[in-house]
Amino acid sequence: MKVGPYSIEAFCELVRTFHGYPAPGVMLGGFMVDAVLRKLPGGRLYDALCETARCLPDAIQLLTPCTVGNGWLKVINLGRFALALYDKSNGQGIRVFVDSEKISRWREIHDWYYKVKKKAEQDGERLFEEIKTAGAGVCSFEAVQVKRGILDNESRGGMATCPECAEGYPSRDGALCLACQGESPYAHKQRSP
Amino acid sequence: MKVGPYSIEAFCELVRTFHGYPAPGVMLGGFMVDAVLRKLPGGRLYDALCETARCLPDAIQLLTPCTVGNGWLKVINLGRFALALYDKSNGQGIRVFVDSEKISRWREIHDWYYKVKKKAEQDGERLFEEIKTAGAGVCSFEAVQVKRGILDNESRGGMATCPECAEGYPSRDGALCLACQGESPYAHKQRSP
Repeated sequence: MKVGPYSIEAFCELVRTFHGYPAPGVMLGGFMVDAVLRKLPGGRLYDALCETARCLPDAIQLLTPCTVGNGWLKVINLGRFALALYDKSNGQGIRVFVDSEKISRWREIHDWYYKVKKKAEQDGERLFEEIKTAGAGVCSFEAVQVKRGILDNESRGGMATCPECAEGYPSRDGALCLACQGESPYAHKQRSP
Repeated sequence: MKVGPYSIEAFCELVRTFHGYPAPGVMLGGFMVDAVLRKLPGGRLYDALCETARCLPDAIQLLTPCTVGNGWLKVINLGRFALALYDKSNGQGIRVFVDSEKISRWREIHDWYYKVKKKAEQDGERLFEEIKTAGAGVCSFEAVQVKRGILDNESRGGMATCPECAEGYPSRDGALCLACQGESPYAHKQRSP
């Protein structure tokens, strides 16, 4: 049993290095990405759409060329543990999602996924064993057509210097950058050497 | 000159593997992350806030323990090429940003950053050389206080099964999951084997 080009142990180690620890969500996510890749014609590049910000984006970043920073992975946080890989040229692809019926056959996976138990009460070893055994067997698949608006890679257009903060920003955002329009995540800041 | 624990060449290779190619934004981002880390007390873990979705998130993911999937990296897309590393317990940290005055001394970096030239007209080699030479010298730094609302790791609360799509979702989202409330990124989908 493999996860992409890796043995389960090697993937587990990769997850530990990148994600910090072998989180159940990244391990399950690995099987999901692997399963979708097997269903798609090889030798092509696919874009990725991830429906949760938790764990799953890291499985995608580790097993495909898609990253947040190169823009081939888009995270649209709908709170569903699901992802799609699709052909950017026409939006056609395959979506994989955790199937709530199939997951009910695996106690620890079910209880982890549905947050039935607190983390301290989880049997981590059994959860890990169940994920390894079930793999993408707790998932179902759909052929999807990604909406046009998501395919169109919005160009940021030209750049300007914000008259307020003096930093560069996409001029289509308006007369000021978005931070100076009130979206700054900082309560205050002070120039430092 | 190093980028985190890497030589420039080793970092360049790492970027190629993860990001697909040694993009100028990830290379410059590497120097920015490295510079902030040097200004912060070592031996602690910091969360990251990135103000653009382009390139910079990958530099952060490669040089810190923060990833999108483990939640320690938040991307708030304000279109500014800037990031902050901060102490999650009190929100205090250091922000690094491209300084529009300093950048004006570097022709290729300036023209790339402000999109003065089309990609085909850029002198890629010279741009790369300038980034290597300037490093974080095109940046300035600020002591920042991250807003409380961003620090509070919103708990998703319990999970429910959506009566429409039959998938698990955070119950606080309402009676249906966000996708079934109209936020689905798919024009249509069809169950596949």
